[in-house]
Amino acid sequence: MRTEHDALGCRQIEDACYYGIQTQRALENFSISGTTIAQIPGYIESLLEIKRAAAMANHRIGKLTDAQLSAIVQAVNELIASPQPQQFPVDIYQGGGGTSTNMNVNEVLANRANEILTGVKGYDEVHPNTHINMCQSTNDVIPSAMKMTAFRLLGALEEALHPFIAVLGEKVEAFSDDVKLGRTCLQDALPLTLGQQFSGYRSAFERSAQLINSVRHLCLELPMGATAIGTEFGTWPGYKDAFYSVLSTNTGLDFTPEKNLFDALQNADFWITVSAALKSTANILNKLASDLRVMASGPRAGLEEITLPAVQPGSSIMPGKINPVIPEMVIQVYFRVLGNDLSITRACEGELELNVWESLILNSLCESCRLLTECLPLFSDKCLKGLIANRERCAQDAGNSLALSTVIATLFDYKTASDVAKKADQEGKSIYQIVVETGLLSAERASQLLDPIVLTRPELFHKLYK
Amino acid sequence: MRTEHDALGCRQIEDACYYGIQTQRALENFSISGTTIAQIPGYIESLLEIKRAAAMANHRIGKLTDAQLSAIVQAVNELIASPQPQQFPVDIYQGGGGTSTNMNVNEVLANRANEILTGVKGYDEVHPNTHINMCQSTNDVIPSAMKMTAFRLLGALEEALHPFIAVLGEKVEAFSDDVKLGRTCLQDALPLTLGQQFSGYRSAFERSAQLINSVRHLCLELPMGATAIGTEFGTWPGYKDAFYSVLSTNTGLDFTPEKNLFDALQNADFWITVSAALKSTANILNKLASDLRVMASGPRAGLEEITLPAVQPGSSIMPGKINPVIPEMVIQVYFRVLGNDLSITRACEGELELNVWESLILNSLCESCRLLTECLPLFSDKCLKGLIANRERCAQDAGNSLALSTVIATLFDYKTASDVAKKADQEGKSIYQIVVETGLLSAERASQLLDPIVLTRPELFHKLYK
Amino acid sequence: MRTEHDALGCRQIEDACYYGIQTQRALENFSISGTTIAQIPGYIESLLEIKRAAAMANHRIGKLTDAQLSAIVQAVNELIASPQPQQFPVDIYQGGGGTSTNMNVNEVLANRANEILTGVKGYDEVHPNTHINMCQSTNDVIPSAMKMTAFRLLGALEEALHPFIAVLGEKVEAFSDDVKLGRTCLQDALPLTLGQQFSGYRSAFERSAQLINSVRHLCLELPMGATAIGTEFGTWPGYKDAFYSVLSTNTGLDFTPEKNLFDALQNADFWITVSAALKSTANILNKLASDLRVMASGPRAGLEEITLPAVQPGSSIMPGKINPVIPEMVIQVYFRVLGNDLSITRACEGELELNVWESLILNSLCESCRLLTECLPLFSDKCLKGLIANRERCAQDAGNSLALSTVIATLFDYKTASDVAKKADQEGKSIYQIVVETGLLSAERASQLLDPIVLTRPELFHKLYK
Amino acid sequence: MRTEHDALGCRQIEDACYYGIQTQRALENFSISGTTIAQIPGYIESLLEIKRAAAMANHRIGKLTDAQLSAIVQAVNELIASPQPQQFPVDIYQGGGGTSTNMNVNEVLANRANEILTGVKGYDEVHPNTHINMCQSTNDVIPSAMKMTAFRLLGALEEALHPFIAVLGEKVEAFSDDVKLGRTCLQDALPLTLGQQFSGYRSAFERSAQLINSVRHLCLELPMGATAIGTEFGTWPGYKDAFYSVLSTNTGLDFTPEKNLFDALQNADFWITVSAALKSTANILNKLASDLRVMASGPRAGLEEITLPAVQPGSSIMPGKINPVIPEMVIQVYFRVLGNDLSITRACEGELELNVWESLILNSLCESCRLLTECLPLFSDKCLKGLIANRERCAQDAGNSLALSTVIATLFDYKTASDVAKKADQEGKSIYQIVVETGLLSAERASQLLDPIVLTRPELFHKLYK
Repeated sequence: MRTEHDALGCRQIEDACYYGIQTQRALENFSISGTTIAQIPGYIESLLEIKRAAAMANHRIGKLTDAQLSAIVQAVNELIASPQPQQFPVDIYQGGGGTSTNMNVNEVLANRANEILTGVKGYDEVHPNTHINMCQSTNDVIPSAMKMTAFRLLGALEEALHPFIAVLGEKVEAFSDDVKLGRTCLQDALPLTLGQQFSGYRSAFERSAQLINSVRHLCLELPMGATAIGTEFGTWPGYKDAFYSVLSTNTGLDFTPEKNLFDALQNADFWITVSAALKSTANILNKLASDLRVMASGPRAGLEEITLPAVQPGSSIMPGKINPVIPEMVIQVYFRVLGNDLSITRACEGELELNVWESLILNSLCESCRLLTECLPLFSDKCLKGLIANRERCAQDAGNSLALSTVIATLFDYKTASDVAKKADQEGKSIYQIVVETGLLSAERASQLLDPIVLTRPELFHKLYK
Repeated sequence: MRTEHDALGCRQIEDACYYGIQTQRALENFSISGTTIAQIPGYIESLLEIKRAAAMANHRIGKLTDAQLSAIVQAVNELIASPQPQQFPVDIYQGGGGTSTNMNVNEVLANRANEILTGVKGYDEVHPNTHINMCQSTNDVIPSAMKMTAFRLLGALEEALHPFIAVLGEKVEAFSDDVKLGRTCLQDALPLTLGQQFSGYRSAFERSAQLINSVRHLCLELPMGATAIGTEFGTWPGYKDAFYSVLSTNTGLDFTPEKNLFDALQNADFWITVSAALKSTANILNKLASDLRVMASGPRAGLEEITLPAVQPGSSIMPGKINPVIPEMVIQVYFRVLGNDLSITRACEGELELNVWESLILNSLCESCRLLTECLPLFSDKCLKGLIANRERCAQDAGNSLALSTVIATLFDYKTASDVAKKADQEGKSIYQIVVETGLLSAERASQLLDPIVLTRPELFHKLYK
Repeated sequence: MRTEHDALGCRQIEDACYYGIQTQRALENFSISGTTIAQIPGYIESLLEIKRAAAMANHRIGKLTDAQLSAIVQAVNELIASPQPQQFPVDIYQGGGGTSTNMNVNEVLANRANEILTGVKGYDEVHPNTHINMCQSTNDVIPSAMKMTAFRLLGALEEALHPFIAVLGEKVEAFSDDVKLGRTCLQDALPLTLGQQFSGYRSAFERSAQLINSVRHLCLELPMGATAIGTEFGTWPGYKDAFYSVLSTNTGLDFTPEKNLFDALQNADFWITVSAALKSTANILNKLASDLRVMASGPRAGLEEITLPAVQPGSSIMPGKINPVIPEMVIQVYFRVLGNDLSITRACEGELELNVWESLILNSLCESCRLLTECLPLFSDKCLKGLIANRERCAQDAGNSLALSTVIATLFDYKTASDVAKKADQEGKSIYQIVVETGLLSAERASQLLDPIVLTRPELFHKLYK
Repeated sequence: MRTEHDALGCRQIEDACYYGIQTQRALENFSISGTTIAQIPGYIESLLEIKRAAAMANHRIGKLTDAQLSAIVQAVNELIASPQPQQFPVDIYQGGGGTSTNMNVNEVLANRANEILTGVKGYDEVHPNTHINMCQSTNDVIPSAMKMTAFRLLGALEEALHPFIAVLGEKVEAFSDDVKLGRTCLQDALPLTLGQQFSGYRSAFERSAQLINSVRHLCLELPMGATAIGTEFGTWPGYKDAFYSVLSTNTGLDFTPEKNLFDALQNADFWITVSAALKSTANILNKLASDLRVMASGPRAGLEEITLPAVQPGSSIMPGKINPVIPEMVIQVYFRVLGNDLSITRACEGELELNVWESLILNSLCESCRLLTECLPLFSDKCLKGLIANRERCAQDAGNSLALSTVIATLFDYKTASDVAKKADQEGKSIYQIVVETGLLSAERASQLLDPIVLTRPELFHKLYK
């Protein structure tokens, strides 16, 4: 055990720990969720990138010695190469706007840098605040690290969306001739092809991928340099430029400072926009998953338009039952993203010079991102890829629909069509039968113009009509 | 025009108006929504009840003269007998925790009371603050009036629930022998009767009515007497007891003071509980409406288990289409109640000695209550009462289900049943057919034990089994 | 009274009414909220614009006669020139995805067009479905009219934001030298100028205006042409191109069809994005309003950094009290927008070929837009413009802060600064006093380097430091 | 490795695993969150209690042999005595309404029971479906286990609330004479004692504890016996009575069946009520924590009415800063509970015979319960207990308030008081000074009647007044 001191007193720390007294206090104050900052993927790495870039910038402007720089950079590099989650044990729930997170990183780097330089842990050569945190404040470091983390998480989501969209595209092709009945208000409507329906899903996910991409790139604007409240007090001339230059070089990403650094710390509405993009993505996932459930209802007393791959037995009591379990998992992801959006929205209500609810925002955002990213390949591999259209059932339902009377409305007028539909309904016949029986159209003409596939492509209909 | 003065200056008021300068200022400051406090049913009346009871209590303890009391009571009685919404034009959105609402009522009563006593409007004989507001503060008057208003609104909802539950009960009886297929995960499951299904709905609405009733009665505890921050400062000895005695007598309701008046002003969590009861009611309404839509899907390519009354043509382009428009209206009421619950929840976050977001809470709560109250009889009259079961289709689907293999699992074991279900699925046959073909049961035995109606009443099954 | 017929029967209609049987049925089915479609600003006008453009397009392709076109166009023009809200009485809550709204407009135009052509109402010459609704479906008309309406509503909001931002800009200038204490976690932090703080607000509202502008322009992509489910069935060759050409010419706006019309009807996630932009705007309004409340707390036992204009007396019981009623109205607008966002989000969960919850989306969106638009000029005129900085109090608090020890940390190191801060705290002295007493800095140097205004501009500090 | 079979095929299972093929499939299908069912405290134990009670009931009615019962009971007892989380690895996100959870438990018990009976794992003697799941369905087992789990979690919360309330009570006593200024709309109002303020908090938490207690006891009504859809099909005569009798005896809790078992499976609104109770509790926690932040604002340029214990340094850049980190942690718990309430509400929207979103409900509910339960003792120990009132500052602010003019309004009238307040404001004097200067009251009388402590206890005021 070693003893560390701060303004409030001292604490015994196990000597194997690189973290120090402020981390220890955070452990005492905040351990309520069982989730630590090290469990947010990329978060510690983002903080380490910031600390390395700050050290290199401070060295460049002459505020750190070669030895200090070298030790700090080595410490960072080691932790990036071989992450040590146990060194970052602070709970994701924490007051103080992330001071504990920032100090946890500062302490680990300082103790390791001192160890590198002197053989023992301590803060004599490299101090957590004076050196590691030089020209920085928790208040610019934490939101910057959040944005860098979000950039990664959104990137992973975007990468997961692309193959998902490609699989939807395969279905558009595969189902391009599979006529089925459209439904509005859950009632029989006009026919479309299953491919057309899937083209709608694909289009929605393409929009979603664009939305994610666009908010993601806004994450490259950082508040670094703002220090405590946006005035940049505590930075030295040349630091900010050097910092962004170094960080961009190190990461290969084009980071820039936010335009107004007061705004950057005061207002968190950006995260509402990010969360809305996630909610929007989850919303169309929910739509697709819910539609599949409805279309696959059955196997004998439902719509049975499609069959989803059977991935597990569906009941502990009813043998032979198969459930749409993958869509149902996806739907629940949506429910959770919905809740996270509310938590985030509420946390975006800040106060005066700083929004201090960042750890809650990051935690909730990260959960939403990861659930979405994880469920996409499962949805694709275990459900969409093996999904089969029940062509006969689809065609039969399409041809039998009273909504084919729309053809008569188009050819004649609404009133005539309405009478046909009514007669078909009352006599339990098809529109085709009534039309031919009443002599509105010849059998040949009727079979052409009432062919469901024709109704899915107006250009065919127009050609026939001429 | 007449001129009224307050601490900040003066305003010209049209002489026909009974309201005064503070109401005028509120009109200048807050007119954003187009909805006034007079549009909250029962709100002005509740405020008038409070003012009358306060005046009678203050007279009883010797703080108002006979003439003052008589004029105030006459003014109140006139406004209750013949409501004058144009005299209460303040927007429902207002800062200041309802001061404008309280002063609007104080001013109208004072001007009218003076008119009664002197022939002209004015505040000489009866002053809005000194007399009408005596022993009161906006801070106890407004939340008290809210609770009294909520008591009425919740009462109307409760009254609307009872006949609704009765109609569900009629359906339980009417459909008691209509066997249909149950569905879990939208997949064919075991049979039940439509009556059993409706008994579930009825049971849920009975719980809901109880919940509403229970939160409603909590509305009889008022913060009156608390004055500005709970200390009761500004009240005179005997006032509080007299007030509750008079108010209870006048209204025939057993009003009592809240136990801790500091709590009563500080904390608004009570409205979370009320809103949750409304949300819960809306949630089961949504469930019922959504289920009806699914069961009525068709008319030819859906489940078609039930037919809803046709209340309007369903499409401007597709003749013959009928939509479940009543359930769809109900579902949207749920969506709105959901949003109102969030607005209310957020507004229940108060601060220090007083929650000042009461007008938003009341407005949102009132909207939820009224939408629910209004949609219930329409749902009942235009949808539930005329709802028809398609008995044959229901019976056919029930008998054809692979889930009847559960009978085999019960009689033999899960493995045997699973094989039967698999065979039935692969060969497109019924469980009955497979069971008889494979000799598991005799045809007679199978037709008894696999009869769907038997499966809806285990006691029948047990009798047959013996 | 006249009698109108539809597929379900007939209804008596008052002869003064231009609407017909389907509108009458909608009145019977849906009157629950007291809010009609005519109360959504611009909605009926958007529908009329669509109907006129459709008629002109259908005439251009030879499907309507000159007489029909002329009568329809006259009917539309009359209603735009002189709106008749009583002719559009359908409740905003309606099932069926807006069929009642579309048919209300179709009926009014048909009856009026017939009256123009024949002298009497009726559908012989111009039929609501066959002619007015030609090549259209409720399913493309309603979401198109929603987008056109949203374009107007968002435009009004954007227009309200610009002067609001300008007023914030005036404050940035006016307060550019007013040093005050920054606060993080509600605890004394480093100084900034009030102008810097307001520059943060301005920056946030600029971002918000951009966001609104960007979602607004997405409203110019319409699903017109999709008809019932996206296949375009029911349109005639040339119609779609003609429609967009005519509509764009008539309105002077560049309307285009959405890329995938199946997507356009299936998925409503666009409204999540729009609502998020509104929520984001409301969120920073709430932030600004809340901050003003905190900074104006007092008048004697609060922060008293600023004084808000007194716009009305603040209490019915406490004379002399003035409340921040305008910010409090604004905050409640945020609460409502929050709830509306949830209602909209939930309603964006559609099903199969069509999202049928559009009327709820439009209603909620409209309320959010209007509340925001209405509250901005009031916030600006009645609060921001007359807001005064209490310079002395601000300067005193800034100079007295223990956080000035950050200067010592910057000049020396964190440990030294921490000891200074501790000593200042314990002895109740200023950082300046301790620094001079302990000889860390000369009095002259200390007064230069610890001057709060210097800390708000690091370049001044750096100059002094050299 | 061993091979297990089900209706869909087979899987290789590591021989050390007691779980079987359906668990294996669930691992393949659902591993998205990293959280397993074993991480919900008490959930597996509740399921084991159900399985043991079902086995004992089935043995009692003659459906299980002595050997089977003995093996099953031993297997259950072992797992309760020594929990094996690695045997229950299924993700909390799962489709199918918890079938995977139920089968995971069924498989582990069956394999272990066979091992006990035969020395090897397998299902010959005790089958997961036929024996372990006898007379049960996932659909009654999972919601029953949820209620049993919620009973425990809510119990833990209730237990955490009691000492918390006691600490608030200590503060009520300790601060009973500490006069301070009340604030409404963040503006100076009348005085109260800090003890009175805390009595409001205590009262709110007492209400909260009652609410939790009341919903908790509703968790003792279970749907066990409903089997798949509420008909009880698949149970044997005597089973249900025996089950409840055994379960109640084993657990010492009075479990009963829900009144309507169709309702019990169809509708999940109960969880809305439970979640609302949690949200309500979180809401008042947020209120208390937020109030403490405001009252402790400073240390020099805030309200400084109270000082919170310093539990960690507050800034990485500003030495000497101390933040209210414990209240800020608590506030974030509220934000999360808010989000969970929405996820739960959405998941409570079920469909037809069964709500299948139970795993999401349980997961979100459990998180809310645990966060609340965990943060209460930290809030109490690290913040409330050591909280200090700054008596002098409080008294000074209370005596200086313009709202003391309320005394004059009470003694004279509102107009006189208003003039006094205005004069005091303009001249920067106290109400006492103005009152004495203008001769309204003698100095002696004024010092008595304007003493803030007198204003906190109207009975003192009334005594002096006489």
